[in-house]
Amino acid sequence: MASSLLRNPNLLPTTPSLPTFSSKPTPFSFLVKPSRHCSISLRSQTLRLSCSISDPSPLPPHIPLRRRPEYIPNRISDPNYVRVFDTTLRDGEQSPGATLTSKEKLDIARQLAKLGVDIIEAGFPAASKDDFEAVKTIAETIGNTVDENGYVPVICGLSRCNKKDIERAWDAVKYAKRPRIHTFIATSDIHLEHKLKKTKAEVIEIARNMVRFARSLGCEDVEFSPEDAGRSEREYLYEILGEVIKAGATTLNIPDTVGITLPIEFGQLIADIKANTPGIENVIISTHCQNDLGLSTANTLSGAHAGARQVEVTINGIGERAGNASLEEVVMAIKCRGDHVLGGLYTGLDTRHIVMTSKMVEEYTGMQTQPHKAIVGANAFAHESGIHQDGMLKHKGTYEIICPEEIGLERSNDAGIVLGKLSGRHALKDRLTELGYDFDDEQLSTIFWRFKTVAEQKKRVTDADIIALVSDEVFQPEAVWKLLDIQITCGTLGLSTATVKLADADGKEHVACSMGTGPVDSAYKAVDLIVKEPATLLEYSMNAVTEGIDAIATTRVLIRGSNKYSSTNAITGEEVLRTFSGTGSEIDIVVSSVKAYVGALNKMMDFKENSSPTKIPSQKNRVPA
Amino acid sequence: MASSLLRNPNLLPTTPSLPTFSSKPTPFSFLVKPSRHCSISLRSQTLRLSCSISDPSPLPPHIPLRRRPEYIPNRISDPNYVRVFDTTLRDGEQSPGATLTSKEKLDIARQLAKLGVDIIEAGFPAASKDDFEAVKTIAETIGNTVDENGYVPVICGLSRCNKKDIERAWDAVKYAKRPRIHTFIATSDIHLEHKLKKTKAEVIEIARNMVRFARSLGCEDVEFSPEDAGRSEREYLYEILGEVIKAGATTLNIPDTVGITLPIEFGQLIADIKANTPGIENVIISTHCQNDLGLSTANTLSGAHAGARQVEVTINGIGERAGNASLEEVVMAIKCRGDHVLGGLYTGLDTRHIVMTSKMVEEYTGMQTQPHKAIVGANAFAHESGIHQDGMLKHKGTYEIICPEEIGLERSNDAGIVLGKLSGRHALKDRLTELGYDFDDEQLSTIFWRFKTVAEQKKRVTDADIIALVSDEVFQPEAVWKLLDIQITCGTLGLSTATVKLADADGKEHVACSMGTGPVDSAYKAVDLIVKEPATLLEYSMNAVTEGIDAIATTRVLIRGSNKYSSTNAITGEEVLRTFSGTGSEIDIVVSSVKAYVGALNKMMDFKENSSPTKIPSQKNRVPA
Repeated sequence: MASSLLRNPNLLPTTPSLPTFSSKPTPFSFLVKPSRHCSISLRSQTLRLSCSISDPSPLPPHIPLRRRPEYIPNRISDPNYVRVFDTTLRDGEQSPGATLTSKEKLDIARQLAKLGVDIIEAGFPAASKDDFEAVKTIAETIGNTVDENGYVPVICGLSRCNKKDIERAWDAVKYAKRPRIHTFIATSDIHLEHKLKKTKAEVIEIARNMVRFARSLGCEDVEFSPEDAGRSEREYLYEILGEVIKAGATTLNIPDTVGITLPIEFGQLIADIKANTPGIENVIISTHCQNDLGLSTANTLSGAHAGARQVEVTINGIGERAGNASLEEVVMAIKCRGDHVLGGLYTGLDTRHIVMTSKMVEEYTGMQTQPHKAIVGANAFAHESGIHQDGMLKHKGTYEIICPEEIGLERSNDAGIVLGKLSGRHALKDRLTELGYDFDDEQLSTIFWRFKTVAEQKKRVTDADIIALVSDEVFQPEAVWKLLDIQITCGTLGLSTATVKLADADGKEHVACSMGTGPVDSAYKAVDLIVKEPATLLEYSMNAVTEGIDAIATTRVLIRGSNKYSSTNAITGEEVLRTFSGTGSEIDIVVSSVKAYVGALNKMMDFKENSSPTKIPSQKNRVPA
Repeated sequence: MASSLLRNPNLLPTTPSLPTFSSKPTPFSFLVKPSRHCSISLRSQTLRLSCSISDPSPLPPHIPLRRRPEYIPNRISDPNYVRVFDTTLRDGEQSPGATLTSKEKLDIARQLAKLGVDIIEAGFPAASKDDFEAVKTIAETIGNTVDENGYVPVICGLSRCNKKDIERAWDAVKYAKRPRIHTFIATSDIHLEHKLKKTKAEVIEIARNMVRFARSLGCEDVEFSPEDAGRSEREYLYEILGEVIKAGATTLNIPDTVGITLPIEFGQLIADIKANTPGIENVIISTHCQNDLGLSTANTLSGAHAGARQVEVTINGIGERAGNASLEEVVMAIKCRGDHVLGGLYTGLDTRHIVMTSKMVEEYTGMQTQPHKAIVGANAFAHESGIHQDGMLKHKGTYEIICPEEIGLERSNDAGIVLGKLSGRHALKDRLTELGYDFDDEQLSTIFWRFKTVAEQKKRVTDADIIALVSDEVFQPEAVWKLLDIQITCGTLGLSTATVKLADADGKEHVACSMGTGPVDSAYKAVDLIVKEPATLLEYSMNAVTEGIDAIATTRVLIRGSNKYSSTNAITGEEVLRTFSGTGSEIDIVVSSVKAYVGALNKMMDFKENSSPTKIPSQKNRVPA
């Protein structure tokens, strides 16, 4: 049975155990907030999230099946090795409301390197100054952190098919040990006619020139994508792809931009390109499958089976509309069935970091996964809680095809009761270390103080509570404003009144009071009276982290400021307004709501104000790509 | 282009327009609550949900491609017709926390009939008395509502392979015009050895006898599933399937119980069964694909392509672990590509009811879809909001392969400002009618009163606000307890205090006050002092329905009562404890929290207390199926 492959280490090939692909330990490089969905699982068992930032011991032994081949842009020495190209930071961040700050992008990039992805598409540098800086920072840091096996991720920047975009991309990625430029232009009839308003010959000319231009800058790793390839005329595809190979492209990415193909079709498309494109044997074929019909994972696997050796994916499958192929689904399907069904395909990922990466992306983007999301959903490894579960648990393989530990999810048998109000600083520190955190004394003091406050009010302080507090206390943006005190009266009688006391960056205290239609409305109005930064509340949601009426509630808000916070959308070429999220965790839902709002305001003010988009004169219709 | 098939009605075959598959109009047969995710889309455009309960006019013209063939259990006159078997009420309801009341099941069944599914698996009658009653009620009502085209859904009940289960299933479904019994037993080596502890010959004997027994009761429509077929030995499968055909099975369902197969494998499995099972030409082959690797939709399509003519699916893809194949994905993929890629396959569904059905299931089960869920996710038809979106909108087909209207999602160009505080009763009634609601005068008065209260506090009352109020006011369980008033003081200074006034079923008022760790804690404790029904709070979440600080907040809680509320899990045979959800919608988040809790308590007390599981003496290991 294939399931036993993952369950039974004895069945694994007995290659010598290689060190994991971990980068240098750094504090604060991840953030976990068990969501509402997670709380479902907490009912029946405790999910303990393991990671290896400060202490690799909580991780199960990682036995990579094979060594990752040396990186050469246009070829792979092992014909069965599939490169994983993660575009969470570019295509994923394009999701409505998923805006990430530079710091969040860096955190995610670090986590992706830990996961061992081959290529990180770090952003679209021409979108705005902030986007440019984020890609550059990732290139300079993550793109230069080589591990003991020589692994360092390729850092890739997206650009439309024009010189300014390509220069901008190169200026951002060139600091990486392995920089890549990814440029694209649409090739389907419908896009040529309605979006580009160009002839086929003109588009070939642009593509050839721009790939050549990218190479001329000194970039030896150039990826080209014919946008909407899934609906492009086949012969034209072979022609344009053949031309960009001649011009120096090293990877050809085949996007099913609108997610319209079925797996047999997409596999056939890749097979046809492989069979008919001149010079294709000198480059890597890549897949990029959108999920509009729910088929992105299947299409990606079908493409790999047909000869693609790079798969473009995002964590949790996020992205515009129905998103992209999920990294975790594609990678685990290859891990589970690569040998049996896909002719021996494998990736270089250390899958034990999947859960942690998934949680971080969920937290930072605010794109919550549904409870029944494959691999990483809260229910993915949970069965309906029974009075007795022994029937199902007689043999784990009866209903489970993947060991939770394989993706970094550990189950403990205790009820998650780790600490109480008599627990000391040392016990908290030990537990934090076990959870993968590494704090300095000052940070530990802050968290300990918060912990004691919670423990006074709550009999059992669980891992989830601790993680929420750490998230609330440590992973906040640079504080411009800080909530000191709040007092509220509300109820069905109306006349909700809030009095709020904030401290500014200099520590000066400000007090204001306001009435409102409810406690949150009145409190936010009081905050507005002090902060005086116009913002629109777009979304508001709250989840209890743990069960019980005395649970910690985490509030998340999304706000939009004035027009100055904008960037350029890579695909449509349009300017979009940035949105900013904030979270707050408290037992009191009103207090957590106010902390979330103040956090979002801080994040918005922290966002570089000089992040206006790089304008390309009247190029919107000329080279929209 | 395939996309134009759906976009351009001129390309549709010009068969005469048939009436839609709508059942008799009934009030309250659905419930829509735009979730947090939905509010994202509300930023850039208003989503207007259309349905045809009282007035079919808001729906776009439905042009069914072909007439639904007459229902004969073991054959379909048109070889391209694919039956849709919805198991939301059975497999979907098995999801952790997704418990549905009988009334909710009936509402969903009515909506599924409107959608036009061929078979409704209404439940597992042996699970508990309540489950039995729910299936029976659906059989009696929905199973007897024949529309003008002769359509009436088959009502199916699940049973393990034992006489008591089968009798129980028959007693529940026999009232339907088209009753079906679905019985199953595991056939994979791993299940035989670790779960059933039986030999292959013994299992064949049980399956044969039980199918024969089902037929002997008078049931002419018997479905048999070899559980874990995806991992079963091929020759054994052919043998057992051949035997149950001889015993009288009319549909053979092939489950990939652990979701381990890739699409090529699953298609091959169906093709092999079709080629090698004696008598297979006299029955319908069905697929049932779990989603553990994110491949359930692709596997289902692959199975249909290989010869299956029934697909087992759930709304939103809910189910245990990673869930099942999504009805909306499978049906829309067949609709978009059935002609082009799948040899002309089609279904009989009126896809314009997909969005409404999806929202109802999301609301009732509490299983929220992620924003990037294909077809029905809040972002599925939304692009990142731009200052100008004209580039993308030059031609809708550039990025959209499905018309939103095709699934019942309408976009309006106005900003969703439908009503204000000067709007009268008539304007509200008109808007409600346009939204698909049909209320009597008394209900309208109640909603109008709530509307005026909101309009006093909120400048713009949107469709989403109205729908939330309707949901809150009308779709509540039978009220045992009703919230009259509440007054709360809270803040960072601690000492949250709540005073609550409830009315009991006789209208008698009760007042209590309590302190707590926050406003919700203190208010819930005060409620507990009055209601005196022990309950554990399992989940708590809140979403703002619309944007703006003065939005209406919808709170959802999930509680578990004492052990008396339990039922039997069909797959594991174990007893599980029921959980109960409640929702409340108010501008004041504390008030909405208390309404949700009181609603959940009412639902729990409304649940029949005599719903203890039907015990089958020491059958847990003997015939666990």
